[in-house]
Amino acid sequence: MNRVGAIDFRVVREHTERIRPLLVERHADGILLFTPANILGFSGAPLGPSDRIVCGLVSGDGEAALVCPAFEAPDSRSIPPQTRVFAWLEDQSPYEAIAKAVKHLGLERGTILLDPAVWIEVQRRLAQAMPGATWREDDGAITSVRQVKSPLEVEAIARACRRVGQIYAEIGKRLSPGMTELELAGQAVISMGDGSLSGALPLAQSGPNAAIPHRPTSDRALSDGDCLVVDYVLAVAGYHGDMTRTFAVGRPREKCHAAYQAVRAAQRAAIEAARPGATCESVDAAARSVIEKAGFGAFFVHRLGHGIGLDCHEAPFFVQGNRTKLAPGMCLTIEPGVYVPGEFGVRIEDVVAITENGCRILSDGVPTDVSEAFSQGPLCGP
Amino acid sequence: MNRVGAIDFRVVREHTERIRPLLVERHADGILLFTPANILGFSGAPLGPSDRIVCGLVSGDGEAALVCPAFEAPDSRSIPPQTRVFAWLEDQSPYEAIAKAVKHLGLERGTILLDPAVWIEVQRRLAQAMPGATWREDDGAITSVRQVKSPLEVEAIARACRRVGQIYAEIGKRLSPGMTELELAGQAVISMGDGSLSGALPLAQSGPNAAIPHRPTSDRALSDGDCLVVDYVLAVAGYHGDMTRTFAVGRPREKCHAAYQAVRAAQRAAIEAARPGATCESVDAAARSVIEKAGFGAFFVHRLGHGIGLDCHEAPFFVQGNRTKLAPGMCLTIEPGVYVPGEFGVRIEDVVAITENGCRILSDGVPTDVSEAFSQGPLCGP
Repeated sequence: MNRVGAIDFRVVREHTERIRPLLVERHADGILLFTPANILGFSGAPLGPSDRIVCGLVSGDGEAALVCPAFEAPDSRSIPPQTRVFAWLEDQSPYEAIAKAVKHLGLERGTILLDPAVWIEVQRRLAQAMPGATWREDDGAITSVRQVKSPLEVEAIARACRRVGQIYAEIGKRLSPGMTELELAGQAVISMGDGSLSGALPLAQSGPNAAIPHRPTSDRALSDGDCLVVDYVLAVAGYHGDMTRTFAVGRPREKCHAAYQAVRAAQRAAIEAARPGATCESVDAAARSVIEKAGFGAFFVHRLGHGIGLDCHEAPFFVQGNRTKLAPGMCLTIEPGVYVPGEFGVRIEDVVAITENGCRILSDGVPTDVSEAFSQGPLCGP
Repeated sequence: MNRVGAIDFRVVREHTERIRPLLVERHADGILLFTPANILGFSGAPLGPSDRIVCGLVSGDGEAALVCPAFEAPDSRSIPPQTRVFAWLEDQSPYEAIAKAVKHLGLERGTILLDPAVWIEVQRRLAQAMPGATWREDDGAITSVRQVKSPLEVEAIARACRRVGQIYAEIGKRLSPGMTELELAGQAVISMGDGSLSGALPLAQSGPNAAIPHRPTSDRALSDGDCLVVDYVLAVAGYHGDMTRTFAVGRPREKCHAAYQAVRAAQRAAIEAARPGATCESVDAAARSVIEKAGFGAFFVHRLGHGIGLDCHEAPFFVQGNRTKLAPGMCLTIEPGVYVPGEFGVRIEDVVAITENGCRILSDGVPTDVSEAFSQGPLCGP
């Protein structure tokens, strides 16, 4: 996954302000953030735990702290003014640094909520190092803040989507039978060249490779008649864009055409259904019924989509059984697909933001149909 | 990070066999694996938890289970015969699937150790879904099995290192002033082309960019006089190779030369010191004292190295304060570096396997000095 640019400090401030009343409701004095997305969103630093412990802390007063290895510590200009850094050297205990941060925030005898993704080993060591504090799993404060996006956040996701969308023009220019998936993906990324790339390639899956949704890009050569699925994720200023387009290599056969048109129509039906008050499962069902009617129901093997923001995949999810109601500011992918084992795969993915009376496609400048062979096919479905 | 090929099933069998007596010692009936490396090492499947839960289970009888989303479930030929798959559909609870797996292994009233990296939310849900079982954090069984490698594992790491090492010839062929870090890294990876690449680029850091150890590859253009640090990680059959070489672009100035020679000599001193019975911290000290004597001590800002295997970074670590004694079969990186802020960085990294009377360099076919400008410099240090 590629990252460009630092997070907008105003967004970090929004998060620390928005979580304060949720801490009060929960009779908590502070919260410890542990996933890379939560650490970024609440402390402003693009760091996460590995074999070296990193965490963020926010107090009920809206003060923040970052605990990280000294050699990775951000300089003070690259993080928000409310975040104070507590760095630990390679031969020091990160838990002693966390204890200093907790004391600095006045939480040493307080109740501190824990990011639900804290490791059990870390929870044990925190309790050992800070016996005066009370530690309790967060029961939804973080999710409440993150799943409804502010206007600044929606624009950040839109920017990331527009950047992601540029790859399809690069792919389209270079695509030709005989070149490998890896060559195509690699050349397209190099041509996107930008500062601070961590250097991940798009997922490029051709022919039968595309029938396995998470199959990595390989050195299979593209061949006339293939469908080529290109899924690309990128973070700009901390927020993700995530899109998929399906290309035709030469002239795919009729079954691919039919699947493509079903997926295309399913996506439009879901976009129609995505509005405030609708349940997540109803949007999934709107897309699924189109694909079922076209005879491909057994081949749409995953949920319709996922929330997106500081994480590429986050709540809420468009999945059967999820009765969460959509609200303005929620941003999600809509990505129906058809996967016929051993034959081919098709997927189309865009990000939408729920508005007051429907939804806005955040990648609306990027054409949906990237190959003439598919855009001319007959439409099926409603 | 790039992955090639499936794990050797014999290695998975070794792991399940080696953990059995450790479960008995701990009065436990089974263990739940949660990190991608542990799931791969004990169940054989290259999957890990995300917003979709995945885990592995091993019973005291040496039977294994894998719990994963149905659309990612491996077919039975691609996992070891002792592993049974329990898949959950997108609208089903993964915890119900875990409960079925626990029952299949006869552990529903047993004591099950938990991978220390299990999330606190997952621990709570496990206890709710399986109230008859007793759950307890593993206190070292997994680490004991993983930190000493079998001969099969050492060969797997050596294979990965040899593959990683090929990138330096590709970089050397293409390196020229004016091209960007991203172009160089991208073209080198494309030329390595292999099946099942997940598509990560090497870290290529030039000039002042190399002074920040984890700075991502950027679109900075290489310039005459730069040091260029290229760090590449790749997994072959589940096992990692990790190497770094420092190239000279044109003619770097005398200070870069001196730093390079200090790092070179420090690595050799550490390789000399790495033998059974030596403490991890003594090997770190052997390298560090060479760099200190050369006047660069303040610029060697990280530990000397890390264990390597199913994870790129795993126990044991070459770091001050770590009195773990080296034993035959341990595999670690030795990667001293000098980072002068705003100016340049230098690092050299190889993987060694501890043998009966010293250590073996697993990347020994790859030249250490990849640029003539550096290989001809005067040697400093002891």
